[in-house]
Formats: sequence, structure tokens, C-alpha cells
Amino acid sequence: MVDPMFATDAMRAIFAPRATLARMLDVEAALARAEAACGVIPAEAARAIVAACASLDVDPATLTHAARESGNYAIPLVAALTRHVDAASRGYVHWGATSQDVIDTGRVLQLRDALASLASDVGALDAALAAQARRHRDTTLAGRTWLQQALPVTLGLKLATVLAALRRHAARLARARDELSVLQFGGAAGTLASLGTHAAAVERALGAELDLAVPELPWHTQRDRLVEVATTLGSLVATLGKLARDVALLAQTEVAEAFEPAAPGRGGSSTLPHKRNPVAASIALAAAVRAPGLVATMLSAAVQEHERGLGNWPAEWDVLPEICELAAGALAAMRVVVEGLDVDAARMRANLAITQGQILAEAVQMALAPKIGRGDAHALVAEVGKSAAASGLALGDALKRDARVTRWLDAAAIDRLMEPAHYLGMAGAFVDRVLARGAPDAPPCDR
Amino acid sequence: MVDPMFATDAMRAIFAPRATLARMLDVEAALARAEAACGVIPAEAARAIVAACASLDVDPATLTHAARESGNYAIPLVAALTRHVDAASRGYVHWGATSQDVIDTGRVLQLRDALASLASDVGALDAALAAQARRHRDTTLAGRTWLQQALPVTLGLKLATVLAALRRHAARLARARDELSVLQFGGAAGTLASLGTHAAAVERALGAELDLAVPELPWHTQRDRLVEVATTLGSLVATLGKLARDVALLAQTEVAEAFEPAAPGRGGSSTLPHKRNPVAASIALAAAVRAPGLVATMLSAAVQEHERGLGNWPAEWDVLPEICELAAGALAAMRVVVEGLDVDAARMRANLAITQGQILAEAVQMALAPKIGRGDAHALVAEVGKSAAASGLALGDALKRDARVTRWLDAAAIDRLMEPAHYLGMAGAFVDRVLARGAPDAPPCDR
Amino acid sequence: MVDPMFATDAMRAIFAPRATLARMLDVEAALARAEAACGVIPAEAARAIVAACASLDVDPATLTHAARESGNYAIPLVAALTRHVDAASRGYVHWGATSQDVIDTGRVLQLRDALASLASDVGALDAALAAQARRHRDTTLAGRTWLQQALPVTLGLKLATVLAALRRHAARLARARDELSVLQFGGAAGTLASLGTHAAAVERALGAELDLAVPELPWHTQRDRLVEVATTLGSLVATLGKLARDVALLAQTEVAEAFEPAAPGRGGSSTLPHKRNPVAASIALAAAVRAPGLVATMLSAAVQEHERGLGNWPAEWDVLPEICELAAGALAAMRVVVEGLDVDAARMRANLAITQGQILAEAVQMALAPKIGRGDAHALVAEVGKSAAASGLALGDALKRDARVTRWLDAAAIDRLMEPAHYLGMAGAFVDRVLARGAPDAPPCDR
Amino acid sequence: MVDPMFATDAMRAIFAPRATLARMLDVEAALARAEAACGVIPAEAARAIVAACASLDVDPATLTHAARESGNYAIPLVAALTRHVDAASRGYVHWGATSQDVIDTGRVLQLRDALASLASDVGALDAALAAQARRHRDTTLAGRTWLQQALPVTLGLKLATVLAALRRHAARLARARDELSVLQFGGAAGTLASLGTHAAAVERALGAELDLAVPELPWHTQRDRLVEVATTLGSLVATLGKLARDVALLAQTEVAEAFEPAAPGRGGSSTLPHKRNPVAASIALAAAVRAPGLVATMLSAAVQEHERGLGNWPAEWDVLPEICELAAGALAAMRVVVEGLDVDAARMRANLAITQGQILAEAVQMALAPKIGRGDAHALVAEVGKSAAASGLALGDALKRDARVTRWLDAAAIDRLMEPAHYLGMAGAFVDRVLARGAPDAPPCDR
Repeated sequence: MVDPMFATDAMRAIFAPRATLARMLDVEAALARAEAACGVIPAEAARAIVAACASLDVDPATLTHAARESGNYAIPLVAALTRHVDAASRGYVHWGATSQDVIDTGRVLQLRDALASLASDVGALDAALAAQARRHRDTTLAGRTWLQQALPVTLGLKLATVLAALRRHAARLARARDELSVLQFGGAAGTLASLGTHAAAVERALGAELDLAVPELPWHTQRDRLVEVATTLGSLVATLGKLARDVALLAQTEVAEAFEPAAPGRGGSSTLPHKRNPVAASIALAAAVRAPGLVATMLSAAVQEHERGLGNWPAEWDVLPEICELAAGALAAMRVVVEGLDVDAARMRANLAITQGQILAEAVQMALAPKIGRGDAHALVAEVGKSAAASGLALGDALKRDARVTRWLDAAAIDRLMEPAHYLGMAGAFVDRVLARGAPDAPPCDR
Repeated sequence: MVDPMFATDAMRAIFAPRATLARMLDVEAALARAEAACGVIPAEAARAIVAACASLDVDPATLTHAARESGNYAIPLVAALTRHVDAASRGYVHWGATSQDVIDTGRVLQLRDALASLASDVGALDAALAAQARRHRDTTLAGRTWLQQALPVTLGLKLATVLAALRRHAARLARARDELSVLQFGGAAGTLASLGTHAAAVERALGAELDLAVPELPWHTQRDRLVEVATTLGSLVATLGKLARDVALLAQTEVAEAFEPAAPGRGGSSTLPHKRNPVAASIALAAAVRAPGLVATMLSAAVQEHERGLGNWPAEWDVLPEICELAAGALAAMRVVVEGLDVDAARMRANLAITQGQILAEAVQMALAPKIGRGDAHALVAEVGKSAAASGLALGDALKRDARVTRWLDAAAIDRLMEPAHYLGMAGAFVDRVLARGAPDAPPCDR
Repeated sequence: MVDPMFATDAMRAIFAPRATLARMLDVEAALARAEAACGVIPAEAARAIVAACASLDVDPATLTHAARESGNYAIPLVAALTRHVDAASRGYVHWGATSQDVIDTGRVLQLRDALASLASDVGALDAALAAQARRHRDTTLAGRTWLQQALPVTLGLKLATVLAALRRHAARLARARDELSVLQFGGAAGTLASLGTHAAAVERALGAELDLAVPELPWHTQRDRLVEVATTLGSLVATLGKLARDVALLAQTEVAEAFEPAAPGRGGSSTLPHKRNPVAASIALAAAVRAPGLVATMLSAAVQEHERGLGNWPAEWDVLPEICELAAGALAAMRVVVEGLDVDAARMRANLAITQGQILAEAVQMALAPKIGRGDAHALVAEVGKSAAASGLALGDALKRDARVTRWLDAAAIDRLMEPAHYLGMAGAFVDRVLARGAPDAPPCDR
Repeated sequence: MVDPMFATDAMRAIFAPRATLARMLDVEAALARAEAACGVIPAEAARAIVAACASLDVDPATLTHAARESGNYAIPLVAALTRHVDAASRGYVHWGATSQDVIDTGRVLQLRDALASLASDVGALDAALAAQARRHRDTTLAGRTWLQQALPVTLGLKLATVLAALRRHAARLARARDELSVLQFGGAAGTLASLGTHAAAVERALGAELDLAVPELPWHTQRDRLVEVATTLGSLVATLGKLARDVALLAQTEVAEAFEPAAPGRGGSSTLPHKRNPVAASIALAAAVRAPGLVATMLSAAVQEHERGLGNWPAEWDVLPEICELAAGALAAMRVVVEGLDVDAARMRANLAITQGQILAEAVQMALAPKIGRGDAHALVAEVGKSAAASGLALGDALKRDARVTRWLDAAAIDRLMEPAHYLGMAGAFVDRVLARGAPDAPPCDR
């Protein structure tokens, strides 16, 4: 498990060691019910087992030693459960199943809950991003490429690119949850031979008990559904990391355009009274640093031997919960950031003036290009811009003094070109497209 | 690029450095056509540019020095293209686009081809697996868990689990290709400001030229679609690695149940004349060792700064082709293996006898369990099995001598239980389900 | 933290969340003592702080919420400590230090203990490997390349290769521990400005208090020493994984040459009474699957911003303990395996006969090579071997029937060549070299 | 291989596919010489083989198909070499060796060259860093933690922390090269049985021929020395990435304190004439994004089966050269950056004023702390600072208006505290320590 500061309490509850055992007991109980329904075990036995599963409260720590000896927690847990059932029914516990059936299906139940919880968190962040993108649809700031001011963009556009990605992640999450919500039930080697002619019926009944689909066949050593959970969350976390990095960059002392919401005790330094550290961004970025290694581990672990590998399957047990916890922690952190994003639009405008108009060089170039060609326009603007920068002149002023420019553009035209809000292109339309969730709509270009 | 021994020639052709430049020129040509159609540049200029894109043949090595200085290949390529166009039209080259538009869209074109090629390779492997699963539906061999013989299974079942996973991968590949097949077109900072009021029309026309969907907005620093290509291929490669590992394990000298097809010069050793090395499996396994690190890199690289990061975007350039090459190489290798799989069914049967019946201990246990409970049955069979093993007795013989067993099972019943083919459970049905591609079909368990 | 089944209790104690806070309090106490010694704070204040550090018992869970707000545990811990000190001395708590000084130095103290503990575990495994390598110096078994029998080797040689690697790891561990055992003490931005003219003296005194070397300068964002701990342990774990994989392969039902020690409840299956699963190997292999991703994370996290990054530093906090825990768990598991390794030398000999002499093809080839050249010898033995295999003949018998062979080798010579123990080359000498820990000693080749 | 833009030509030459074959031929030639010296093969045969190795020029592409069939390049290369030697001597080619001996030893030769080349590159960067650290020992700029201005530091200190780390890396590189420079020579299964009683003599002679140490025993499946090369370079690249990130952050339009050297064509944009992109930093950062995945792959690949694994060993072949290439490219890029670093010290000073004195809050706090305690001082300065910030007042002015402050500090004292150059603590001393390469030297704190 990850340190709780990087996770949410909700996700920690889902994957707490005790919860892991509880979900395995849920599977044992459902198995007993399914087998009783199919006449494989007596109804009284099922009742006793179900009751025992409900009342058994095992401290995971007490099973650790046995788990090291047996290679997993299912064996000592089933032993504890068996002892907990009355002698008459005890013999029907875990009937026909293998440890992996119980561990994997229990994990599927946890992941189904985790993915539902994450989907809800994604929904909340979606709402926050949409609201801020709408609010800041036209808030103009410098677009930065290579960490250099490039062209004016809008804060709405910045947020809308994240929102669009988040919606793709939401769709992937839903798909991964659907694909994952299948039963693992194959018995010792994936044939369900232990259930004889009842196998298919029990399989179906067990799936119904747990509201899990019955797959074509057991997947003890085909881990692609679990890998998909990991990769989907890994990609989501990367998007959150990107957003976090941008916020941290905007919050730099020298940029100061947007900040995490202020709160007492939040982002203070132990020694520097004036600081306002982007702590939530740090949590999301830490997740983004860690997730790739965890995803890679899931992929490495997926190369399993025969009908049950060794080493690779157990390698999954800590890793999947950690990915879910990191994703939940990053989502929660970024929701706080986006909902309370503290935007300094005046500073954004001020920063757009730092280059003394150079950030609008392309606007001038594109205005000149139809007259003198893109290449020449690029060269001319670069030359004027360079000498302006060297002499400390604003680009607009330098342009107005250059006959090669003024031949085509008068002072008023140059002034218009020097206004960032006039060179935002499709920024607003792009935001609208995302907010409308609709397909891009553009006029045909026939003329 | 990966060493050619790990790739296919087809995939290498798609991602050859010269091909990468050619796809970028395809984008430049399409851009010129789209802009001419929308009246942004003169039709003659477009014709000149399109012709120049077709006739320009640049050795990538000649651009390397410039690429190190400019940070990418688009800038020197556009410079070379511009020089290659006549003076009158030269000014309209690359009009309104940014380097990343050309590089990313060119890469999308390559990946679209790559994914189509991989889908076809997956189809061929699917056919081979289906044919072998059908042929060996009832070929019995030992199922192995923890690398220990566990229970009888069938070769058909082993292959069907791979086939079922492969089909899930095929669906993911198709989805990833659909999601990926979008235009990247945003200009210097993702606003298309350079195209003024023509932006949306050019965007639509350019998408149509290249048969790429127009996304809601540019995705310069939202790399989730590319990440999805990487994760999808990474997971596919893991499945291929699992199959390869199983084949290599079956081909062990001491197991000798299945082999890669023999061919002159294939799998020989430089010093050991008798060997038959699983060389194709080695290629697939090497891919499975390498893919996780490449996928992790794509995830790390996805955390980009503002409107264009530095370092992270370039980190993708070698990595995506390498994943595609490794996937293609692994698919080709495993297709050879599966199509020509050399199965020794007699040896499989012989190996099933190694444990002198112990591999069917569960069958006995399940036969006794309804009489004496699963726990007692487990303990009894374990005890008899252990003393049989200690004395070198076959399990069947030991069972026949134990009154606690014979009270419930006579010799004929024990003999029946000792036949592996009688304890295959749903193996055949599972194969049929996969081959039928249908939903699992089971009798209701109401009784 | 990893699940306890994959770790040792000793390592878990070192990195328990409460222990992490305790080490941070050790640093605070040492800082107070050092500053009092240097006259920076009053002696009474130091005494009060030291006493408070000893008596303060904080449940880490109570700090989690505050840690999410402040970005680390040091800030709320220092706050709790401050409240715990009497009003007169309270103002001197954490004097001149920054959170990272306390967190990093506390972590150094933990890692120093962890590496000492691991060195001791490595020593124990070294002893076990040396003892088994000595015992089995001449125990002959099949060497396997590509999972195919290649040539005879000895069990001693197999173990000696691991032992030699383990000793290299031991040297690396000692070096990493030395390099790591340095103070982190720089104040808010690494200048120790907060201590004015006392800085160097306090630095020296604090190092002495904690028995840590004073580095040339603080290393807040230069994490190479910590990376070295991770990479060193990652490489160690890979070696343990290699040993574990070999044991699991040798224990396969069809190979059955060596096993993990048997013990009641050890390696049993929940459903298969006859199995003896290599559970300790599984724990080591799980560690080997997980460590690469953790090491990669440490490398990614090392790219930090300016004087303290965000996201990357916190990413280390869970990862380093996990690597240590996995290494400890893998060492403990493999020590059990090696100390109690259950070797079936008779089965090893029997398996050497599986190929009916083909495994000694090279011996024949090398005997023929001086007569007819290596290439012709290779081809001839391959041809005879192939037709022998096809007709079910032993290689020795086939050789005796081939005039091209018997021209150079008589039946007695062929029989001698067919004895595995005669074709072990330097195996024994290699074992002796490793056991002697000496430099290789070979006769000069002048003749 | 990585795209040439990310590597140096020197490193590409070392690992070019043709060079890889050439180093393997060097091993074959040395083997022939060693064996002739030891009387294992005729002297004329050795002469013929050595000559053939020198004159054979194989296009690697012609071996690819065969390599896919045989699993490596050594088998077809030895076949080509054999054909290239006259019939009389041909039989002695590759005598007693196995493919892996030739491939691994050839790779060791390449890596030895690569590490020497990298050591030289590290030396050049060391010199550049030392010169700049000396030059900018007292150049004051804002130290930034969490990307927020924290306290004044010096540019010399920033560079010295990198330099100190670089020197640790240099020591690790030297060690890794020493440890790596060993022979791989074990024959088919690591026993050298093929050389009979000549084995040790040939081993020693071959080591002498290639100037490689003879290890205790072959290390076919113990890859820790190669892993160490990878981890050492991975950590070096992370340090370079950290430096690159800092340069890119300093070069931000809004910060503008330091830049990569300007040169015609360097860092220009295809559309934005005014930009000056940190392209060299981008190359180093791309390496830092990619290296962790490659290192992880080397660790995963180190878990090999028995005497030669499959999949894992070949996984190394592309990966090690890529790490070396990326390290070389990153070193070359950062050398350019550091040597030509364009520092704007005036802007650094100006940026230190951005917070209107808040960046010196700690100085005030530490001045007040001896009077009123650290906690109260922290709270008081935070309160004054906050209200100053709210009202747009400089911190110094606000302090001068607050009686709780002026009770202890007069206006002149406050002015002194507001001068960044007065609050640099040990920055200069730390730089001197690193430049002196000496152990830290501090006065004892007894008073």
C-alpha cells in the first residue's frame, strides 16, 4: 500500500488487507450458495458456510507466516474458515475451487469497486474542469512551448485539452471495468474437473451471485484484463501529472498566474513564511512518477508459466492496489486544485507583455506572408524582432520603423496585430467543441 | 530501431528513417492541397509543393546535425523542401503549421499502417491457434501450476486460453487504431491562429485529405492516444511471451512434449550438434522483456509541460517504433511456432504417468468428498499419496490397499479415476466456447 | 510497504511508519544537541528537546491529513514536537533546519540500518551457498542452455556462479552503504544561511552526533546516493531471482532434481494433495519482477527541479522501503531454499541419460576435431546423432557403427566419451576458485 | 540504436552493427592466437584465421535472416568466417568456444571503449562545470523549492551540486569499467570442457590477448556486471536531466536568467521567429525520460534460466548500446550548454526583488528567533509578510512599521537583512569545498 498521504481514505478502505480477506470470504460464501443451488453441496452446509463467512473476522497479520509457507493468503484463510464452520458442514468449504479462483475473483470485486469510485472521482474532476474552462474561455495567457512563450492562448483552452483527455480516460475506465467484471473460476488447473457435470451450472450460478460475467474460459495465466486496468490508470495519472505540472509552472514566483487554493496550513513551509507550495500538484506528480514503474511491473508479471506461474502472479498483489491508490490520490488532489484554482488574469496579461510584442511575431508574419511569402515573412520578422530585442525596442515600434513592413502594414494594423486577444485563433471554438461534447463542426471549405 | 532480427521487414519498412520523412512530406503535401482548396494558398503553389514533396528524396543522415540544433527533423526537412520548391511557390510551404503538427500527424500515418499490419499478423496467429486448438481439443497433457504437475488438461485448452486473450487484444488494437486516427493540427500553440478565419475549414480539409478524423482540439501535449497504442501492444507482447515461455518449457529435454518446427539451420547450436533451441520463442520472450520498459517510458513521457514540453515529446520518437517492431517480430515468431508446432502426444501421455497417479489425487479426493467431506478427503488422499510416494507405489495401488478408501471406492472405480482423460472437466467445452466465439452457454442450475 | 509475506519482520520494523517518525525525531534531537554544543541554542532547550523527542509517541495516521496539506510529514511532526516541548524551549525546535534535512537524514539512518541488515542476510546466504557448492562440487547434472540439455555440469558450479555474483553484490552493498552514510543538512535552500557563522560547526557536530559523514555540500536534489542503493538492491534481487528460477525449474515434476526443503504446511496446495510448490522461490521471483519498476522510479524521480522539486522527491518515500523489503524477503526465502536444498543426485544422473548420449556429442566432436577439423567433426557428429535419434539408438552405439568415427575412435574410447563425469572441464576448478576467494590460478601456456 | 540526433557520432561508431561484428571477429582472432600459443591449434591455422578475421567484411544485414533462425549473429558470422578461411585451417575456427563467449566478450570490448569515451566526456563536462562554478561562485540568484522562490543562493552553488554528483558518477563509471573488463569464456555450458586440459591456459592467454581480466568463472547467466554499466549510466543521465531541467527553467521567458548559447540555426522555431528553445536540454531530458525503462529492462533480463536463458539474454543486445548512446548524447548536449551558458546576472538580481523582500523572510525570522523563539518568529514574520503582500508593501517596509519587530531590529538592521548577498550562508564555502575536491573543513564547535 502507498503511504496514506498519496491515497484517499475511500480507496484505502477498498484495498485494506482486511478488506481483501473479506472479499475472498464473499467469494467463498457465493460459491457455497451457488453450489447449494446446483445441488452440489447440501443447503444446510451452504447456510453454515455463508454464516461463517459473515462472522469470521481474521486479522491479516495472523496469516502472514502461513502465507509465506503456502505462497498465498487463500490457503490459511480457507483453513481458518473451515475451522470456523461446524463439523458437519466444514467439509463443503471451498468445494471444487482453487486458491487462485478465490484470490482473483476477490480482487475483481475490489477492482470493480475501485473503478467505480475512480469513475466518480473522474466525473467530479470533469465537472470542475468544465466549469473552469467555461469561466476562463476567454482568459488570455501566454502559450508556452519548450517553456518559452510562443503565442497567446486561453486558460480555457489549456483546461479543455485536459478535459478532452479526461473524457477519453473515462471511456477507457468504463471499458476496463466492463472487461474486468468477469468471474475467475477454473479449479486447480482451469478445467473445473472438480465439479464434474455440475461445472457449467455452478459457474453460471456463481457469476450470478457475484454479478460477474462468465468468461469463455478461466484466465488464471492470461492477465490482460488486469493489465488493462493498470495501463488505463497509468495513462489517467499521466494526464493528471501533466495538469499538475502546468499548475506548478504557472504558480512559479516569476510567473504567478495561477495557484492552488489557499487554506490555513496548506502549502506552508517549515522555515519560509512567505511560501505557498503547490502541494496538491506534488501529490499528483508523485503519482505520475510512480505509475509507469507499476504498469511495467504488471506487464512483466503477465508472462506466466503454464496453468499457474510462480513469482509473477504474486507480483500483482501489491501493485494493482498501489496504482488504484495513486490514481485516487491524484484525482482528489487535482480536484481540489481545479475547483479552487486561484487565477490572476491581470498577471497573465502582464506576462503577455514581457516579450514586448515578440510573442505576436507570428501574427505579423502571417499578415505579411500573403504579401511576400511565408519564408521571407519569417525571415523579415525574425530580423526586425532580433534587432528590436537587441535595442530594447518593442516589436510593434520596430515594425513601424521598417519600410519593408510598413509597405504592407500601417501603424493601426500593426497595433491590432500586437493585441494578444486578436490572435487566439480557434481557442474559443475548441473550448466550445469540448464543452459541447459534440463532434467538431466546421464550415465546408468549398468556395 | 531494434535490431532487425527482432522485427519484421514489413514493420521496419514502415518506420525506416526515410519513411518517417516521407510521411512528413505526405502531410506537407496534404496541407498544401487542403489550403489551396480553402483558398488559403494559390493552387499553383499547392501543385508545386505537392510535386516537390513527391520528388524530394532526403537522406535522413544529412539532417541529423541540423536536427540536433533545432530539436527535431521537421525544421531541416521543411527547409530542404522549401529549397526544393520554385521561388514563386516556396513561400507557401508549411503554411500555418508547426513542426509538431507535421511530426505527429506523420507518425499517426505510420502507426495507422503499423496497427493495420499488426492486426493482420494477429489474424494470422488467430487462425493458426484456432486450427491447433481444434486439432488438439482432446490431446491430453499435464496441467502445471507452480511448474508442478497439477491436473490433466488438454493442449487445446492451453491454446484456447491464448486465443481468447489474443481476440481481446485484437479488439483493443482495433480500438486503439480508431482512436489514434486523428489529425494533429494546431499551429504553434494549438490555436490555429495562423490560419485566421480559414482554420476550421483547413482543418476539415486536411483531415479529409489524409483520411483522419478531426479531433475536438489539438493534442500536442495530451498523449493518451499514443500511450494507448503502446500499452495495447505491450499487453499483446506479454501474451505472446506467455505462449513462448510455455512452448520453451514444453520443449525442455526432460519434458519434450512440443517443439518449434524443425528446419535446416533452425535452432542449431554452434557447438552442440544435438540441440534444437526454441529460437522463435526466444525472440518473442525478448520482446516481452523489453516492452514493459518502453511502455513505462511512454507513460513517463506523457507528463508534458504547457503547450509543448521539452525532452518528453522527443522521448517518444524512438520508443513507439520499437514497440511496434518488437510486437511484429514476436507475432511473426509465434506464428511460425504455432503453425508448425511439433506435438508429441505420446510423450504427453507418458509424462502424465510420471507421478504414478498422484496427478489424479484431486479426482479421488472429489470422489471421496461427498462421502467424507472435502477436508477429510483432502487429508486422506494426501496421507495415502505421501506414503505411496515414499514406498514407490502407484497411487491407484495404494488406494486399493487402504480400507478407508475402499469402503467408498472399489478397484474399478479407482482405475477409472486414474485415467487422465476422465478428469478433464470442462476443457473441451471451454475450447468449443472459444472456437465458437460465442457467449458461454450453460444449462441453468435450477433443479 | 509491501505485503508482509514478501518481506522480513526485521526490515518491516526498520521502515514501519512509526519508525520513520522516530528516526526523524532522532535527527531533531541530534540537531538540538549539536546546536547546544556549538552555542547556537541554550543547553536547557536542547535537553528539553531531546527529552521530548524521546517521549513523543505519534501515531503516523494522525499526521496524514496534515501531511497532505503540507506536502510531507516533517511539518506536522515538528509542530507536534514543538507542542510537546515546554514553552521556554519550544522556540528552539528544528532550529535552522528544513523539512528535507530531517526527512532525508532520517531516511539515511533507516537505510544504513537496512543495508547492515541486508549485508548480514547476504553473509548468511553466502555461507549457505558456499557450503552447498563445496558439498556438491562434483555432483553431476545436465547443464541446460535455451532450456535444452547442453553438456554436463555440476551442481557446485551452478551454485558457485551465484555465489561469485553474490560476493560482488556484497561489495557493492558495502560501498553503497558507505556512500550513503552522509548527512543531509542545508536549511531551506541548501546554504545553511539560517545558522549564520555557526553553520559549518553545527554541520560537523551534527554529523558526529549521528555518526554520519559530512558531505561537500547538501544534496537535496542530487539523489544519486539513494539511486545507488536502489540499483544495488535491484541487481541483487535479480541474482536471487535467477537462483529461484533455477530451483523452480529443477523442481519441475519432470526434472525432479532438487527441491525446496519440505516442512509441514509448506508448499501444499489447497486442492492438490500431492504437490510441493516452490513457494520460497516464488517470493524471490515476485521480488525480481517488482524491483525493476521500483528502480526505474528512483531514476525517474532523480530529475528534480532547482533546490527542491515537487512530486519527484515524495515519489521516493514509499519506493526505497519497498525495495529494501523485497530484497530482505527474497534473501530470507533463498536462504531457506539453499540451506535446506533437497538434492536428488540419482535423478540428476538419470536425467543425464535422457538424450541417450547426445548430451556428450560435443565431447565426441572435440575428440574428432583434432583429426578432421572442428567443422567436419561438428557435421559428422550431428549427422550420426540425428540418425541415431531417429532410429532410437544411443549415440554411443551409433558412433561405434560408423566407420568415419571408428577410424579415429575405438569402442573403449567412445565409452569413455559417453561418461558425463569425464566431460566436466574446469567445473571443479571453477568452484575451487570461488571458494578460495582467490584470483584464478592457471599454468602459463608456454610450451 | 537510438536516432542519431540523441547520440554522438563517436558512440554510434562503437556500437554500429558492423562494429559489433568486428569486435566478435577480434575475439575469434584472439582465440586463435591464444590457442596456437597453447598448442591447441596449429600456428598456421591461427595465422589463417587471424588474417581472415582482418579481411572479412560482412554486411550485418546479410546475416539477419540466419540470425533469426539461429537466435544470434555469432552462428552465421562464424559460418561466414569459416567459409572465408582456407580449407586446411577452417576446421580450427571458433575452437572450443560457444556463441555467447564471442558475443559477450565482443560486447565487453565495445563497452570498455564506450565507458572510456564516456569518462572522457564526463571529464570535459567536469572542467566546464568547475570553470562556471568558479566564475559564478558569488553570482546571486533565487533558490527555488517547489518551484517557488525560497532563499537566495548562488549560481556557483547550483553548478557545484551537479559537479559533486558528476564526480561521484565518474568514480562509479571507472569502477564499472574495471569490473566489466573481464573475459567471457566458458564454452557451451560454462565448463570449458571442450578444451580439456588446455582450458585454463587458453583462458589466461585469451585474457592477455584482449587485455581482459580472467574472472573466477564464466558468467553466462550472471549479468550483474552489465547491469552495473546500465545502472551507472542511468544515474548519470538522471543527473544530466536534472541540470537540463534547471537550465530550461532558468531560460523560461518569465525567468530569463540563463540560456543555452546562441548560435545560428540553434533553437529556432519553424513558425516563431523570436524563440530560443533549449534544444540541448531537450536532448538530455529525453535521455533522462528513456533511461529508466532501459535500466529496468536490464534488471528484468538478468533473471536467466540455468546455463543460458532464452529471451532475456537477447533482450540486452539493443538495450546496452542505447543506454550508452543516450548517455553520450546527453553529455555532449550538456557540455555545450555549460561551456556556453549565457548568464544574465542582472536579471537574477531583478528576480530576487520580485517578492519585495519576502524571499528574505527567513533571514528576518532567524534574526528574531534568538529574541522571541523560532516558532513565534516564524508566526510573526509570516503575519507581517502576509499583510505586506496583501497591501502591496515591501517586506522591509512592513517590518519597519511593526513594533513587535522594531523592538528588536532597527531600520538599518532590517535593510541589511533585506540584501540577498548577505544571506548566502555557506554557499561560497560549499563551492570552494567542491572545487578543492577536498574533504569538508570546518572549525570545531567547542567554545
